[in-house]
Amino acid sequence: MSDRVEKFRKEREALNKAILDRDNINIKRFFGIDSAVYREGALDTKTKELLGLAASTVLRCDDCITYHVIRCAEERVADGEFDDTMAVALVVGGSITIPHLRRAYRLWSELHSDE
Amino acid sequence: MSDRVEKFRKEREALNKAILDRDNINIKRFFGIDSAVYREGALDTKTKELLGLAASTVLRCDDCITYHVIRCAEERVADGEFDDTMAVALVVGGSITIPHLRRAYRLWSELHSDE
Amino acid sequence: MSDRVEKFRKEREALNKAILDRDNINIKRFFGIDSAVYREGALDTKTKELLGLAASTVLRCDDCITYHVIRCAEERVADGEFDDTMAVALVVGGSITIPHLRRAYRLWSELHSDE
Amino acid sequence: MSDRVEKFRKEREALNKAILDRDNINIKRFFGIDSAVYREGALDTKTKELLGLAASTVLRCDDCITYHVIRCAEERVADGEFDDTMAVALVVGGSITIPHLRRAYRLWSELHSDE
Amino acid sequence: MSDRVEKFRKEREALNKAILDRDNINIKRFFGIDSAVYREGALDTKTKELLGLAASTVLRCDDCITYHVIRCAEERVADGEFDDTMAVALVVGGSITIPHLRRAYRLWSELHSDE
Amino acid sequence: MSDRVEKFRKEREALNKAILDRDNINIKRFFGIDSAVYREGALDTKTKELLGLAASTVLRCDDCITYHVIRCAEERVADGEFDDTMAVALVVGGSITIPHLRRAYRLWSELHSDE
Repeated sequence: MSDRVEKFRKEREALNKAILDRDNINIKRFFGIDSAVYREGALDTKTKELLGLAASTVLRCDDCITYHVIRCAEERVADGEFDDTMAVALVVGGSITIPHLRRAYRLWSELHSDE
Repeated sequence: MSDRVEKFRKEREALNKAILDRDNINIKRFFGIDSAVYREGALDTKTKELLGLAASTVLRCDDCITYHVIRCAEERVADGEFDDTMAVALVVGGSITIPHLRRAYRLWSELHSDE
Repeated sequence: MSDRVEKFRKEREALNKAILDRDNINIKRFFGIDSAVYREGALDTKTKELLGLAASTVLRCDDCITYHVIRCAEERVADGEFDDTMAVALVVGGSITIPHLRRAYRLWSELHSDE
Repeated sequence: MSDRVEKFRKEREALNKAILDRDNINIKRFFGIDSAVYREGALDTKTKELLGLAASTVLRCDDCITYHVIRCAEERVADGEFDDTMAVALVVGGSITIPHLRRAYRLWSELHSDE
Repeated sequence: MSDRVEKFRKEREALNKAILDRDNINIKRFFGIDSAVYREGALDTKTKELLGLAASTVLRCDDCITYHVIRCAEERVADGEFDDTMAVALVVGGSITIPHLRRAYRLWSELHSDE
Repeated sequence: MSDRVEKFRKEREALNKAILDRDNINIKRFFGIDSAVYREGALDTKTKELLGLAASTVLRCDDCITYHVIRCAEERVADGEFDDTMAVALVVGGSITIPHLRRAYRLWSELHSDE
């Protein structure tokens, strides 16, 4: 896995821990739901990650996109499925999402470069 | 089908026609992609509609949500799949999406009331 | 209290109930936090409602604004405090928030018209 | 002029007056800039209204779009200029703006129906 | 004070000066209101900064959040008050705000690390 | 031209190429419209770039703003026209756009520093 991904993960975990250490009950419960909502239910985990990716892309949050691109790779999303999801997000969200697509595709390539 | 859905469809079609009658080539081409992107590809139509629904919900567009809720019903999305999609959108987009969830669920109920 | 407020409340409660009857655990937990977060803590309820009002105004959600305007009136927010909150939201969010300010002020007036 | 436009204008003026009667100095000054910024400067009024229309469309505010569509008609914006502005807004903002385009075009037609 | 904060301040001031040197009257007046709106009025400065922080967080603007976090520290906002404000913003704005919360909390820690 | 601009251009082109190499027909067609929409039509290219700049500023996308600022400089937009466009965007979009204005003005200065 690329160094950039490893760095992203470590920083994300360290900062999440710092927030949760504050012991604010509502923030803690929110983080709990945020994990739970992507677990397999009526929809499988892969589909839920695609939903998270599309939502993050139209809302144009790079860190959120990075997280879901990594998770999509882990869930063995196929190239065509990734493209289809990006295409829906691009059409719904418009050209303003293109800079985020560029970074999402760069990461997607990095994650598959050693296969 | 409920009268409200039929009225929504008719108004939507009439107004789309009015836009396309203007013969602006870029707007026409955009509408073409907007249809194409939800057609079966690497992902099936149902999954694409769920993506469209999640994206519309976090962007908080009632007309777009209405359209995708109707399409989800046509694609035989199960109740649990609908709930899972709404739950992801709610967590990603926050409580600001709740008024839209209310209207999405009301429509979902109407669409299934005569089954 | 104005009829419009009473109607808003009833519709809101009925639709919330319809969502919660679906028994999706993540949506239910989200609604739980959404109530908890405005309860008195280090900040009092009035200040939290002003935060909710400012956040709803810059995100331009009429139903959310309506809810927090009603709650602000219940918490005995003074006219000047309401104005100060609206002014911050207007400057942060820009003229695009003005239509929402118009409706927020109309409701604020209605809520105080029989005092 | 259509009744709908006249009604929009009257309600807008009445509600603006209600806000300004509150005598909050910051809100008053904001409303002052909001008028000033569309007056002729290095750019003429027509171009500024097109900027306001494009910005309002990508931010998806119906009342703001209505206002700028009316102003564009008053400034004798040509059909093709209106279409070009809408096309840029549609591509930048994505399909989520389409419901607003529908209403913008309906109003544009109404405003030119008796010519 | 941390170096990062000092660097942020200097860059912000230099760039603001560059904008104001352009002598555009409307931009200048806007900057004037933007300062005025956070000054003590019916609400005290601390509450206004919390409003600015909540609004900036749900709108997901890192520079704006940085500014208000620094101002909150200057106004002696307590840890619990900061947490409560972040919790409201998180619930209203959803998980898409979490990357901003991470950076807000990191800065908040830095600002209190030498106390 | 500044090195920063040259670097932005190269990275943008390389990443766009990487996206288009994927051969997703809908994404390709979207990129086609995204170019076409800024070409001279009823409105000239300069006005269209100002529309793109205003839309990108209120939507707060730095990469999009950078692109349109460069294009505006190429189209010989005058300083006053640039200021007028920024002023409209600032008033419509609010103080949350100010960090983007800062960076837009810094780039605008760089692009004109060797004239």
